[in-house]
Amino acid sequence: MDTVLSQLAEVLEERRRNADPDDSYVAKLHHKGLNKILEKVGEECTETLIAAKDAEHSGDNRELIAETADLWFHSLVMLSNRGEGPDAVLDELARRFGLSGIEEKARRTPES
Amino acid sequence: MDTVLSQLAEVLEERRRNADPDDSYVAKLHHKGLNKILEKVGEECTETLIAAKDAEHSGDNRELIAETADLWFHSLVMLSNRGEGPDAVLDELARRFGLSGIEEKARRTPES
Amino acid sequence: MDTVLSQLAEVLEERRRNADPDDSYVAKLHHKGLNKILEKVGEECTETLIAAKDAEHSGDNRELIAETADLWFHSLVMLSNRGEGPDAVLDELARRFGLSGIEEKARRTPES
Amino acid sequence: MDTVLSQLAEVLEERRRNADPDDSYVAKLHHKGLNKILEKVGEECTETLIAAKDAEHSGDNRELIAETADLWFHSLVMLSNRGEGPDAVLDELARRFGLSGIEEKARRTPES
Repeated sequence: MDTVLSQLAEVLEERRRNADPDDSYVAKLHHKGLNKILEKVGEECTETLIAAKDAEHSGDNRELIAETADLWFHSLVMLSNRGEGPDAVLDELARRFGLSGIEEKARRTPES
Repeated sequence: MDTVLSQLAEVLEERRRNADPDDSYVAKLHHKGLNKILEKVGEECTETLIAAKDAEHSGDNRELIAETADLWFHSLVMLSNRGEGPDAVLDELARRFGLSGIEEKARRTPES
Repeated sequence: MDTVLSQLAEVLEERRRNADPDDSYVAKLHHKGLNKILEKVGEECTETLIAAKDAEHSGDNRELIAETADLWFHSLVMLSNRGEGPDAVLDELARRFGLSGIEEKARRTPES
Repeated sequence: MDTVLSQLAEVLEERRRNADPDDSYVAKLHHKGLNKILEKVGEECTETLIAAKDAEHSGDNRELIAETADLWFHSLVMLSNRGEGPDAVLDELARRFGLSGIEEKARRTPES
């Protein structure tokens, strides 16, 4: 199981439900709605591409890692806005690559 | 620790190093180089945005989940091309949100 | 008036209405629908960004010009799919910058 | 010739060369550099895609036209930052589609 993404999804879910849009960036994004969240996903994707090109020339990956974190973070907010969490995506990846995913694990738990 | 992303990163790393570009999609992407990989990241981001807008109207999130999986997958290939894995991104997210991340865990292991 | 964009818009319109999707790239895009066209717009935008970063380092702008042409071309196909042409966009730009645009010109023609 | 894009390119060029970054949005973009300009191109592309999906459902194209104007505008700023104007892109489109473009016209002028 992905501790970081799962923990982060819980934080995001909590903020979506309970936080004041004036106090919380995540609550504000949900308050503004899906279009605003998708704008941020596209924006962070662009910044990731630019950071990757800069990393290619400088050899320094730090900005690339920070921008990829922004991209994943905003895609989690997007999933949360649609009532989904990272597990659905990780299960899909696990299924495609024959990895032992979350859903499969859960399915096997009662039997083992 | 993120089992799925970590397992997937291992698969991607193995294919980057050992697979024949004629046999493996991942090996072919690395063979074509960073620009080709970034084109795929941008392409999958676009498809994610479109799927999110369609999900908003249909209420069906399946395409959105599949496209987000494509986006995360290709961003892992991008990281791998730059010699990085998902842990660097997850650590960054853990650090930002005060979550117990991978690096921190690893750092604590010898002491516990 | 923009001769090139206007001429191109006429070509695109003619192909949208009359061409066989098996023979014409533009007809095929319309046949596949708006999502496919938007995927192409996003794809060409990504390739434009990558080409701009490469031009920054190489000093050679040719790829950037070719990719920007692809981006404008596919945005014309997108407008055409929504029943619009380049004049609507050029009028908007003319209006914003106080330039003598197409619509304004057309409006003045009868009077002059 | 494209009156609107050519006029706009002249305005952009003038602002790039002479305007104070504190007074002019265009001068500020150039002052911040190519990465900032590319971020705006990517951002406006994302907003164009979202507007196109919304137009598909609402039937109202106004936002789509406004966002496409933003996208073309920022791609002109990008070209200007690389020392290029819209004519290079329009010539490329004219060449591809066998239209009578600017360069060709210019080439023919002395002979006619």
